[in-house]
Amino acid sequence: MRTLKLILAYDGADYRGWQVQPNGPTIQGELARAIHTITGESTLPIASGRTDAGVHALGQVVAWRTVSPLPCTTLRRALNANLPPAIVVRNVADAPIDFDPVRQAKWKLYRYAIHDGPVADPFLRRYHWEVHSRLDVDAIAGAAALIEGTHDFKAFETEWPNRASSVRTMRVCRVARRRDQVTIDMEANGFLYNMARAMVGTLVQVGRQRWAVERVGQLLANGSRADAGPTAPARGLFLVRVEYEDNQ
Amino acid sequence: MRTLKLILAYDGADYRGWQVQPNGPTIQGELARAIHTITGESTLPIASGRTDAGVHALGQVVAWRTVSPLPCTTLRRALNANLPPAIVVRNVADAPIDFDPVRQAKWKLYRYAIHDGPVADPFLRRYHWEVHSRLDVDAIAGAAALIEGTHDFKAFETEWPNRASSVRTMRVCRVARRRDQVTIDMEANGFLYNMARAMVGTLVQVGRQRWAVERVGQLLANGSRADAGPTAPARGLFLVRVEYEDNQ
Repeated sequence: MRTLKLILAYDGADYRGWQVQPNGPTIQGELARAIHTITGESTLPIASGRTDAGVHALGQVVAWRTVSPLPCTTLRRALNANLPPAIVVRNVADAPIDFDPVRQAKWKLYRYAIHDGPVADPFLRRYHWEVHSRLDVDAIAGAAALIEGTHDFKAFETEWPNRASSVRTMRVCRVARRRDQVTIDMEANGFLYNMARAMVGTLVQVGRQRWAVERVGQLLANGSRADAGPTAPARGLFLVRVEYEDNQ
Repeated sequence: MRTLKLILAYDGADYRGWQVQPNGPTIQGELARAIHTITGESTLPIASGRTDAGVHALGQVVAWRTVSPLPCTTLRRALNANLPPAIVVRNVADAPIDFDPVRQAKWKLYRYAIHDGPVADPFLRRYHWEVHSRLDVDAIAGAAALIEGTHDFKAFETEWPNRASSVRTMRVCRVARRRDQVTIDMEANGFLYNMARAMVGTLVQVGRQRWAVERVGQLLANGSRADAGPTAPARGLFLVRVEYEDNQ
């Protein structure tokens, strides 16, 4: 028995999220099927976190326990040959036998992509939130700076499932514009349920100049979910990478 | 009565091409429906050329004759509000009453996009041809240089419909690489049926070093369709722009 660490990229637009569901295709389900085809093993690989329906990944990390003796490169090629083109295994490597991609994750980086040009871009619609009005990126940057650091993020949590603690450390919250595309990078030691999308929904309210920058500080100090912005659409969210200690 | 010139961008992946078909959605059909919704007029707008199923456009030109007195900006907004997000009207402008987007077109620029990295990119799969082996871009550039100029392009024509003449002038045929993405720009005063995709299929054979550069010269001199490369997949092809005389 060995434990393999897989790096996955996927276009989540046509999937019902990572986790196997009774109705509709999922990333986990497609990966389990490909594993079964090439090894005969029935197993459910475990991801660093369950991305929601429509959310994408550039670097999702997955643990796969197998008895297959095949070299990692061979397994990568065989998996890709048996996966739909929307799901790609970028890398396969041997990991410590007890590698746990959920508990051992130290930092996760999400990127959220927004398009705010005067005319929509049909090629970005599966991968961006189209907001239709020009965002004030300087205002968003001011609010993002308030979010960096260690805070109780309960105002950005959809309260299911309940968590023992909603305190997290956000080491990066940064906005950038390139022409009509605005991206928001968020890197933290953990994300509560829907937290990244609730943060983006709030930052966009600031970017639309509907809310003052200070409101974000108040939300972090003593806010509730009802005071924060709407949950941004799944299609703009990308899990970019997950960091582990000790080069795991 | 007035004639309007529309510039359209569309993601053709989920459509059966420009022209209205009995089975399956088309760009022309969606545009006609949006026009009917906002004006009550039943009309089939005419494009500079009929893009095939799966082919995309950044700057397709369409003529629309209407009695609507609404300003161009209002019409653009109303059309976009009634079109699916895969189809976007980028611009609406008044044109000469007899504007004919087919016969008056002087130059058409197509771009073909290829991905040749070691691992496929799931976000490009609807918009690129994934070729799996590294292309020799210098060899493609040598062959592309032979294609520029005025030639009989019958070796690159799928012979339906038959044409009186298959002589065309290619003023640009150019290849460029950016990391794992290779693009081929082709600008001519007209394209025969499937010509752009047959040219790309041939250039990729050269890029794979299966065929010598000189073969392209022989094809132009006295070749037949059977001697040229396969038709490249529709999903990599973009109609970038159409030029008219007199600022039409």
